Amino acid sequence: MYIPTLEDMIAARARIEPYVHRTPVLTSRMLNELTGAELFFKCENLQKAGAFKARGASNAVFGLTDEQAAKGVATHSSGNHGTCLSYAAGRRGIPCTVVMPHTAPQAKKDAVRGYGGRVVESEPSTSSREAVFAEVVAQTGAEFVHPYNDPRVIAGQATCSAELIEQVEGLDAVIAPIGGGGMVSGTCLTLSNLAPSIKIYAAEPLNADDAARSFRAGHIIADDAPDTVADGLKVPLKELTWHFVQNHVTDILTATEDEIVEAMKLIWKRMKIVMEPSSAVPLATIIKNPDIFAGQRVGVIITGGNVDLDKLPWN
Amino acid sequence: MYIPTLEDMIAARARIEPYVHRTPVLTSRMLNELTGAELFFKCENLQKAGAFKARGASNAVFGLTDEQAAKGVATHSSGNHGTCLSYAAGRRGIPCTVVMPHTAPQAKKDAVRGYGGRVVESEPSTSSREAVFAEVVAQTGAEFVHPYNDPRVIAGQATCSAELIEQVEGLDAVIAPIGGGGMVSGTCLTLSNLAPSIKIYAAEPLNADDAARSFRAGHIIADDAPDTVADGLKVPLKELTWHFVQNHVTDILTATEDEIVEAMKLIWKRMKIVMEPSSAVPLATIIKNPDIFAGQRVGVIITGGNVDLDKLPWN
Repeated sequence: MYIPTLEDMIAARARIEPYVHRTPVLTSRMLNELTGAELFFKCENLQKAGAFKARGASNAVFGLTDEQAAKGVATHSSGNHGTCLSYAAGRRGIPCTVVMPHTAPQAKKDAVRGYGGRVVESEPSTSSREAVFAEVVAQTGAEFVHPYNDPRVIAGQATCSAELIEQVEGLDAVIAPIGGGGMVSGTCLTLSNLAPSIKIYAAEPLNADDAARSFRAGHIIADDAPDTVADGLKVPLKELTWHFVQNHVTDILTATEDEIVEAMKLIWKRMKIVMEPSSAVPLATIIKNPDIFAGQRVGVIITGGNVDLDKLPWN
Repeated sequence: MYIPTLEDMIAARARIEPYVHRTPVLTSRMLNELTGAELFFKCENLQKAGAFKARGASNAVFGLTDEQAAKGVATHSSGNHGTCLSYAAGRRGIPCTVVMPHTAPQAKKDAVRGYGGRVVESEPSTSSREAVFAEVVAQTGAEFVHPYNDPRVIAGQATCSAELIEQVEGLDAVIAPIGGGGMVSGTCLTLSNLAPSIKIYAAEPLNADDAARSFRAGHIIADDAPDTVADGLKVPLKELTWHFVQNHVTDILTATEDEIVEAMKLIWKRMKIVMEPSSAVPLATIIKNPDIFAGQRVGVIITGGNVDLDKLPWN
């Protein structure tokens, strides 16, 4: 297992710079008053393809040799990673195949195709997905880019907090949502090297709290099929992300479904930005843990903005 | 009738600078491709109190003498003007009374109160509103600040396009939604003086097209009770705004309810910003008039972001 390093992050940053935004940091006086903290929202919902995953995907795609690249890239994802890998492959002009269950939302399939990628459908089961994916790779020779358990992807996500600490001075803590742990691992990579005094928190839906339970148990616990409105956070930790979480995260905090939806509405209403339920989990945990966050300067990573406007969780 | 001048706009800009944001200008490659134009969205949804009306209200409030200010300000509005007047009065620390029908949405009453203003309820009829308002003014001696037919308010709104032409070079046109005409009048004031080559368009719901009909008829036509999803745009032109519209607007374009909602969803989905239905009318008219806008650099004023998330127009 290769653990990505600070040098990998620095290389990633130079490599992906032409293909990703340096996203803005927004603040809200009202949310500061509500939480007693000073919050700095790093808006990856305004990132290319609408999610931070454009960073890791671009790093993987643009790090390939021409020979590798010619065969294209492939992944399995019905979420932002598939869309973002398609985006990055499109920018390099190489093929991208995304395997997703035929039950995935039409909008997700359209998003992959919108950037020029190919969608191959499987049955919803893990075994079908793996079989179909193996076939795709066998046929194309495409490079597999895992959504998060991949050093190239983590080094790419790590560029986000490198920007954040340049944009905001004197942060006491940074908090990001945790699913598979790609963003949290990237945050650990950067901050443990460049700003080790900043505490790193992860925020997770109580309904899918496998990372929090892993953290307390000291080994990876994977849930079978957690159900949460924060649908980007259902996947489990893997070896590489577990390494970073175990070594650098101060705590993993959880929020209920109602708390997540309430925080999401607060951000939409007060900050006038569209973001995903997953991205609201950090604020939900900040609101309920004033003992940790009050009086602190806190970076909050808004991970993505690709939400189905026809199925908002409060309707 | 006093017509506000460029000097009034310049004085307003200095006066309100501590109380309003210089709002950002956002762009979207996808929306440029869709329309064939280069669009520059001036994001007043990110303005203080969530709407451009914070500009005019702040100019009126901070232009009062201390003696006038001590008696406070008053208005009738169940929309953003009431909220923004309350915001400005709160910043100056003076009383603000807003008369609105008891049928107005609770969120609107809460917004006024949230900034420290007082809500006085009337019956929904115009006669009741006027009677209640007269009583408020008689009791308090408060200064009446009309939502748009007021030179102080128009001079304040005019600061928006003064920023826009500093932020974006070489605009061919600017388009803003039109209801009472306050924003459009402010735009006319600034551009006719500082950038007379920029064409000014107004965008209106077809269901409340009294301004478009006024423009063609050559005199003010006021509708009785138009019904449109763009609820900020139901009010009619008045003498002062008619002056600017008549003299400086190139055309008033209209869009159907469906076109407005479609444009609103496009902006939410692609630009990840929350804005009101009224603010989507310009994009709706740009999409349907490529003969006017294709190939042009167009400033698009996103007027406000105070939307009821529980009653989105596509749900």
